[in-house]
Amino acid sequence: MTTDLVQAPPPTASGPLSLVLFSGTDDKLSAAAILVAGAAMMGRPVRLFLQYWAADAFRRDHIFRHHGIAGGTTAAQRAAFTASVARGQHWSDTLRQAKELGDVRVSVCALALDLLGATKDDFDPVVDDVEGVAAFMAEAGDAITFI
Amino acid sequence: MTTDLVQAPPPTASGPLSLVLFSGTDDKLSAAAILVAGAAMMGRPVRLFLQYWAADAFRRDHIFRHHGIAGGTTAAQRAAFTASVARGQHWSDTLRQAKELGDVRVSVCALALDLLGATKDDFDPVVDDVEGVAAFMAEAGDAITFI
Amino acid sequence: MTTDLVQAPPPTASGPLSLVLFSGTDDKLSAAAILVAGAAMMGRPVRLFLQYWAADAFRRDHIFRHHGIAGGTTAAQRAAFTASVARGQHWSDTLRQAKELGDVRVSVCALALDLLGATKDDFDPVVDDVEGVAAFMAEAGDAITFI
Repeated sequence: MTTDLVQAPPPTASGPLSLVLFSGTDDKLSAAAILVAGAAMMGRPVRLFLQYWAADAFRRDHIFRHHGIAGGTTAAQRAAFTASVARGQHWSDTLRQAKELGDVRVSVCALALDLLGATKDDFDPVVDDVEGVAAFMAEAGDAITFI
Repeated sequence: MTTDLVQAPPPTASGPLSLVLFSGTDDKLSAAAILVAGAAMMGRPVRLFLQYWAADAFRRDHIFRHHGIAGGTTAAQRAAFTASVARGQHWSDTLRQAKELGDVRVSVCALALDLLGATKDDFDPVVDDVEGVAAFMAEAGDAITFI
Repeated sequence: MTTDLVQAPPPTASGPLSLVLFSGTDDKLSAAAILVAGAAMMGRPVRLFLQYWAADAFRRDHIFRHHGIAGGTTAAQRAAFTASVARGQHWSDTLRQAKELGDVRVSVCALALDLLGATKDDFDPVVDDVEGVAAFMAEAGDAITFI
């Protein structure tokens, strides 16, 4: 990879990595946690905004349950993912480590509370606060990644 | 949220919010409409580019039908979403309001017409025009959010 | 489209189009390939980072198999997509053409090798290299699109 960096100097990321997490399946949440950890390792601020099924997956009593994997996957893919989870760490632990390492904030969308019939206290402590979409957008910068 | 804004002044979004809508399920379209409304409230231009199943969901005779929810969701999540839809407004109405409020343009991908065997007239009036991918990209700026 | 460009001069994209491909279904991979081709036509560098099921779809012995379509689609949508594939070109051929046309690099996530029990040699030659998430992020710039 070093040679690539020599060939083309990397663009400098100047804004936060702003992720809207929508999906609540363990494979997508694991992929998101890897991106968050990568950004935190590079010193980039990360903002997570939890909507819908991702918010549901962060509930205190749900977070370590199995949340399934994305639609359109095969039985072989599901088996590979299950084996991978068994030998790796949970996506929420990757997020917790990223929060210790860098500037990572996790907000749950105010509208998701209504959808789920939940309050702030129903969420795992990895969630920092409840926020409206306009407040998230004000901090998100130009680029929003939807997962 | 005010305290967060004091702690860290928000980055200034200088480009449009450019969304490629691919998925045609009502939960993802609702999440997209919330992001569009948030951006429009903040005075940010929004460009929507409809591909595949999202384009299908915007057909004049389809738009108010049920379009299902994303794969990988549970029966409890589907029930929560159905209840939420019954007491809230349709995602297409949120988009119509966002268009009245700000600079929001909805384009359907030219290739989607071929896929769906459709013409411009088959789409709901919330769709402004048909556009090729290069034309969308020319206006999209650096950041593209895929939903 | 010309009239739109006259009304509002397009923002200049200054960074690469950086796509994280997660999903391995043929409809999402086709949508991704269209965006890649559009960016390459405009002279914009493209960086693709393959995670999870997208990485699986790029395996040498898998790439031309059917990989299904996204969850939440209807039987009519699946039939329309199958007909479209039969009369169009495969998404991997669109990517190969985009690579001839412009600066397009395809990297597979190092963690995906572990998940899939694969090595670099198991992937189709359209894949350029194996890369860690931090290396991808260093080149990705501010904006990351997740598909």
